[in-house]
Amino acid sequence: MQLTLKEAADLVDGKYHGPAHICIRGTGTISSARQGEITFAETARAVEQLEHSPAEVVLVAKDLQPEDRAYIQVDDVRASFVKLVAHFHPSQKLVRIGVSPRAHVSDLAIIAEDVDIHTGAFVGDDVEIGAGCTIHANVNILARCRIAENVTIFPGAVLYENTIVGPRCILHANVVVGAYGFGYNTVGGAHQLCPQMGYVELEADVELGAATTVDRGAYGATTIGTGTKVDNQVQIAHNCRIGRHNILCSQVGIAGSSITGDHVVMAGQVGIPDHIHIGDQATICAKSGVMRDVPSGMTMFGIPALPERAQMQLIAALQRLPEMRKQVRALQRVVDGLVEQEEAVSREAA
Amino acid sequence: MQLTLKEAADLVDGKYHGPAHICIRGTGTISSARQGEITFAETARAVEQLEHSPAEVVLVAKDLQPEDRAYIQVDDVRASFVKLVAHFHPSQKLVRIGVSPRAHVSDLAIIAEDVDIHTGAFVGDDVEIGAGCTIHANVNILARCRIAENVTIFPGAVLYENTIVGPRCILHANVVVGAYGFGYNTVGGAHQLCPQMGYVELEADVELGAATTVDRGAYGATTIGTGTKVDNQVQIAHNCRIGRHNILCSQVGIAGSSITGDHVVMAGQVGIPDHIHIGDQATICAKSGVMRDVPSGMTMFGIPALPERAQMQLIAALQRLPEMRKQVRALQRVVDGLVEQEEAVSREAA
Amino acid sequence: MQLTLKEAADLVDGKYHGPAHICIRGTGTISSARQGEITFAETARAVEQLEHSPAEVVLVAKDLQPEDRAYIQVDDVRASFVKLVAHFHPSQKLVRIGVSPRAHVSDLAIIAEDVDIHTGAFVGDDVEIGAGCTIHANVNILARCRIAENVTIFPGAVLYENTIVGPRCILHANVVVGAYGFGYNTVGGAHQLCPQMGYVELEADVELGAATTVDRGAYGATTIGTGTKVDNQVQIAHNCRIGRHNILCSQVGIAGSSITGDHVVMAGQVGIPDHIHIGDQATICAKSGVMRDVPSGMTMFGIPALPERAQMQLIAALQRLPEMRKQVRALQRVVDGLVEQEEAVSREAA
Repeated sequence: MQLTLKEAADLVDGKYHGPAHICIRGTGTISSARQGEITFAETARAVEQLEHSPAEVVLVAKDLQPEDRAYIQVDDVRASFVKLVAHFHPSQKLVRIGVSPRAHVSDLAIIAEDVDIHTGAFVGDDVEIGAGCTIHANVNILARCRIAENVTIFPGAVLYENTIVGPRCILHANVVVGAYGFGYNTVGGAHQLCPQMGYVELEADVELGAATTVDRGAYGATTIGTGTKVDNQVQIAHNCRIGRHNILCSQVGIAGSSITGDHVVMAGQVGIPDHIHIGDQATICAKSGVMRDVPSGMTMFGIPALPERAQMQLIAALQRLPEMRKQVRALQRVVDGLVEQEEAVSREAA
Repeated sequence: MQLTLKEAADLVDGKYHGPAHICIRGTGTISSARQGEITFAETARAVEQLEHSPAEVVLVAKDLQPEDRAYIQVDDVRASFVKLVAHFHPSQKLVRIGVSPRAHVSDLAIIAEDVDIHTGAFVGDDVEIGAGCTIHANVNILARCRIAENVTIFPGAVLYENTIVGPRCILHANVVVGAYGFGYNTVGGAHQLCPQMGYVELEADVELGAATTVDRGAYGATTIGTGTKVDNQVQIAHNCRIGRHNILCSQVGIAGSSITGDHVVMAGQVGIPDHIHIGDQATICAKSGVMRDVPSGMTMFGIPALPERAQMQLIAALQRLPEMRKQVRALQRVVDGLVEQEEAVSREAA
Repeated sequence: MQLTLKEAADLVDGKYHGPAHICIRGTGTISSARQGEITFAETARAVEQLEHSPAEVVLVAKDLQPEDRAYIQVDDVRASFVKLVAHFHPSQKLVRIGVSPRAHVSDLAIIAEDVDIHTGAFVGDDVEIGAGCTIHANVNILARCRIAENVTIFPGAVLYENTIVGPRCILHANVVVGAYGFGYNTVGGAHQLCPQMGYVELEADVELGAATTVDRGAYGATTIGTGTKVDNQVQIAHNCRIGRHNILCSQVGIAGSSITGDHVVMAGQVGIPDHIHIGDQATICAKSGVMRDVPSGMTMFGIPALPERAQMQLIAALQRLPEMRKQVRALQRVVDGLVEQEEAVSREAA
């Protein structure tokens, strides 16, 4: 599994500088690489950080030339490093275990070929699971869910009834998809749960982070579009329609019936109220609280959220506010003086 | 199961307009209804949105008259639509499965009649479960918990020791009730966990959303009052006393020993520090950070939270701040000019 | 189990005031103690709150003398109360159950002596579990995890492959450790998951609250230092390095590759972006959004976070802004008047 400098350069189609027969025994980042290992540095600043690293060899961009050790120059540093990592850590061959006798799979469920269902998993009546899926231990898939091909569901995830999951989705541990929406009719001060007849549909290639929750629609669907990636601990409420290829970072919360376009990005801890529309390619900065619809392509920031540039101006102005208070007080004194003088002049004139 | 227009109008006690024998085959919202289905429109704006809907019939309020299709006028549009949905989607009869042989139920637990305990559930020593409860797969109920009648606990929920759950509560998937409070004594820089001898008590008709966490009291109870509804991913810390009929939206966090009155509403992502009192019928707007007690009936907003009206005035003033900066600078120039002239006059006079 | 006043005073090494033979039957906080029980009051204000309490006896600090009932004066009120609580609620002896036949433990796992593994738990290939650990029901420990001695993992927790857990750690219910980091390369508008070859390492005495999530590193480790305590629903992203003896309160979110020193405190709902460094002993106030590195010992507040004192001044200035607007408008009118007079004078002079 070891590589010489030359072999490593060949593997990543790069140009090596140093003794061709140096031996590389593994990979590591600048802060973790050990003697005999190869690391990577994408920038001149990263090259400087190499100084205290015992790494034997470094992978660099074509315009960089570290002085203190052997290196390999490549076009795409990260992609090349991934190739090397893959050489030293070949992914474990997935050993199919099939359906564990200690999983509970309803007789009415339809399970395709090449599906793993681990111990403790619950698969309810009329569930369909497509070919190539991995259902980890203690996952719960309630009645009438439909899971397409090559889906991975990690331990402890819960899919309520009628959830639809598209091909190649990844659902991380302890996600909850399809719980009741938070909708009540208040009668005489008591809150009565609204009908909960809808469901959740995840299109293809959606990823849901650990402990993320997506509520079912009240009547129809809550949907998440193809290719959208959702981080940990995100909340998506009933009847939302999330577009395609969105990036929703950790702890974002989106209230009921809101809609996002395609390629929307929300940074961490953003809040979106109900019935809001976020246009294509809009970006919402971290911790922002949106209060009205966001047009396509805008970058919004703050509580309430404004276009980022306007918000930064307000923040700058606010930070100069104490100084401005002083200026106004000084002005007041000068003006008071001028007025007094004026009055003195007028009195004299009179 | 199909209904004619007339039959549908009879079912909801409404007045129909259009051919009595039109056939209705299902229900859908404006954006999801298909040909042959009935939808609903509560407002004139909603009626406009019907334009592109293939829905056959629309349920409207008494003062609305859509021009392009058959409609039924009713007093309460939503309640009537729910009746129609119930006609087309009769709720599945709950088939009792009893106690699964693949659940772990302690010999010392006391389980009433008509209780379902699904596969993989854990029920510890001295637990009591009342009649009509449904304990889903892989739920964990530790020793000495007491669950009243007709409680539903969804998969993956965890109840630590001594938790008390009132009748008709609904605990959604992956909630955690009764974990240790976050209290430490710091001795020589190391944090030592405080005693964790309390428990959690949920009164009647409480609903906890998916992945919500409620910590036990340090000595006594953390309580949630009758009829309070809690959304997904809410955190309620040790020794809080949440009042009756509260609405706590998603991602709200309430720190230790805080108390709320009755009918309090907190919107999404609100934060309440420890030892705070929120009065009856108070409302805290989304993303607010409360810093002191809130009197009854107040609506608070912002970080730090102020009465909503005062906060909105500050926000408006802030947004005019750059313009005010310009005004002050202009004033400064004018006043400087006046002072210069004054001095010139004084010099001449001298 | 009952104690006389004198016996209770002896137990806590305190001085009693009142009839020596009063009988104490239990413990409770001021708001929960019942007749015949002992409570505690650390401050004069707490003593006032006793007024409506039926508690028989109260434990107080040496300088306090409640007038209306028997009391015991001690040096450390809380520590003494804990002793009394322990007398009345002796902790249940932990009855070891060993490895449940209904747990799934891989033949390739190495389990030390005195380990409990409850029903429904999943322990994968090559996992190592140290002596004295308690693995609760339905916990999931994937392949190659290494758990040191005396670790407690509550129900529903999920440890992905290669997770390392130090001695005496406590992982609460439904935590997720080691899920994929949220890192994507976007190619032609589609997001492709970066390599996920790293892992998570928790050092000794770390506590993770319920439903907290810690993502694995992309290549190397995400680490949490010795003695750090993490509350419920906290998110720690890939490649973070959290220092020793930190306190991270509920709903804090820390983005990728950020680093904290030792003894850092973050209050609830704080957000830290990626690649930030927080110095030793820094404190971040609740709901703050940090935007740049924080030096050691600083207390930061706000969005964007500033040193607390500066932020409080800005908030005070902002709250006086409407009044300042009025002042500026009044000044403008006076200056306009002066300018007009000046011009009149000039015209006359000309």
